[in-house]
Amino acid sequence: MHRSEIENLPTTPAHKARLLSRHNLVETTSGLAGDYIQANLIVLRAEYADDFRMLCARNPVPCPILGATPIGDPHRIMPTIPGVTLVDENDFDIRTDIPSYHTFRTVDCSKNGGKKKKVLIETKPTLLSDWTTEHIAFLIGCSFSFEQALTQQGLKICHQVQNKTVAMYRSSIPLLPAGIFHGSSFVVSMRLYRPEQLEEVRNVTRPYLATHGEPIAWGWEGARSIGVDDVGKVDYGDVQVVRDGEIPVFWGCGVTPQFAVEKALERNAISGTVMSHKPGQMLVTDWKITDFLEQTRKQLDLNG
Amino acid sequence: MHRSEIENLPTTPAHKARLLSRHNLVETTSGLAGDYIQANLIVLRAEYADDFRMLCARNPVPCPILGATPIGDPHRIMPTIPGVTLVDENDFDIRTDIPSYHTFRTVDCSKNGGKKKKVLIETKPTLLSDWTTEHIAFLIGCSFSFEQALTQQGLKICHQVQNKTVAMYRSSIPLLPAGIFHGSSFVVSMRLYRPEQLEEVRNVTRPYLATHGEPIAWGWEGARSIGVDDVGKVDYGDVQVVRDGEIPVFWGCGVTPQFAVEKALERNAISGTVMSHKPGQMLVTDWKITDFLEQTRKQLDLNG
Repeated sequence: MHRSEIENLPTTPAHKARLLSRHNLVETTSGLAGDYIQANLIVLRAEYADDFRMLCARNPVPCPILGATPIGDPHRIMPTIPGVTLVDENDFDIRTDIPSYHTFRTVDCSKNGGKKKKVLIETKPTLLSDWTTEHIAFLIGCSFSFEQALTQQGLKICHQVQNKTVAMYRSSIPLLPAGIFHGSSFVVSMRLYRPEQLEEVRNVTRPYLATHGEPIAWGWEGARSIGVDDVGKVDYGDVQVVRDGEIPVFWGCGVTPQFAVEKALERNAISGTVMSHKPGQMLVTDWKITDFLEQTRKQLDLNG
Repeated sequence: MHRSEIENLPTTPAHKARLLSRHNLVETTSGLAGDYIQANLIVLRAEYADDFRMLCARNPVPCPILGATPIGDPHRIMPTIPGVTLVDENDFDIRTDIPSYHTFRTVDCSKNGGKKKKVLIETKPTLLSDWTTEHIAFLIGCSFSFEQALTQQGLKICHQVQNKTVAMYRSSIPLLPAGIFHGSSFVVSMRLYRPEQLEEVRNVTRPYLATHGEPIAWGWEGARSIGVDDVGKVDYGDVQVVRDGEIPVFWGCGVTPQFAVEKALERNAISGTVMSHKPGQMLVTDWKITDFLEQTRKQLDLNG
């Protein structure tokens, strides 16, 4: 399908965004279908699901779990919060509806004189050849979900202005261990603001509890305190141009589980292939941001 | 009341533990009424409650919120999980039923040549003179709740064997900010084990999601990685004797909010008095550990 065909279809902006992704017509999904929650992906064999759920429960800021497929069924998402429709099941396939994917597996490279095993990461347009009836796909909240709220307050998004993918870093904040997942740290996303904008940035993003919420660190000293010594060296996404007077502001990032998976693979604690989205290229869900905020309010009331 | 009078009363072990605490007949509650969940306390004016709830939602490992009083009512606890009875209301007062309390307030000390404000911490047997109709008491999970499970597996608790209060440290793990609460870090509790016991220690404590769950770091390198360079220098509780071959194992600790409160007081972000338990001296609740584990299982199923 061509872009114009998809854009003229009588369907929702979220469905159009997924169709554009399915046909590899978009790169970063930042700013795409701004009224809808976006999600990170991690796909694991079912035997690792309990540890992964525990990892998310213990680290809800970088790993807010929104829902998961049944085992082996790529067409249906069961939401974490009952009654929410995360994705309409009529025309959905988690294996194709994200622009690009990453796969992770260990390869033996002792012949090359290196250490015996290393983790091979490949980028693919679909997961059709890797998905099996043993796999579960987990959706994790994404900070793209609150970017529209920021821009509506005049708090421009640097990577949208610069037409880049968001800058992401492996920080020094330890990810709290759960079962086979230990020894990794938070991945963080970064946006640039002026110091006088900070309080408003914090206030605007705070209610988005399940899409990373308010920032976890800010300023140049804050960057160093979380192990980001040079914002010009990204671990995922693109380097951003820092203008005079701007400071970096960091949020938890749903790429964090990919780093946790890599560490588990390095220790041979996971066998087979793990899959994810390519950082910056998300699943656009059917869950409207207004409905999501209402659910978040209820959750906080319940938990308080 | 005398100890023997309380011990002969026809009531539950949890109620007896609270009566012993009310009459200041116990110090650490570790090992007291082992079948029941124990809880940390933080008491704030209602205006700070939303930020505190958000702090707990973002940091559930050190700050697992179990319940809270209505505003100004020290006799009733509303549980986080509906349907759970945290504390029987017939004979309960959060202001007296913990052995010892801490109060926190800023005092002007510019006359003494020091910095203008400092945080004064006082230890008190009750909160009767500090509690007002503006206050809310929050209960936070405590790792004493899983100590019985450890001892039942032959994994002895060093501070019980040594008849001390648990060792606690201010770690370098950043507490994720929420509103007025930012700039502090996790407080961690420590227990000593042999390396070959570690996997069982992790497995036994993992299901206790709302009482800090499995350890967050272990070993001597792990200690340094979270900023604990010398286990002989505690920030709360007692120094433990380390025997040959033992390694430190660290858990999130419900004293963490006290450190967060101190930081907020230092910045004048909180006015008035904040109250807590004295670290190591907890509230013994009426929530049985078996019922708690069942609820935790349901919560993880729901969230997955």
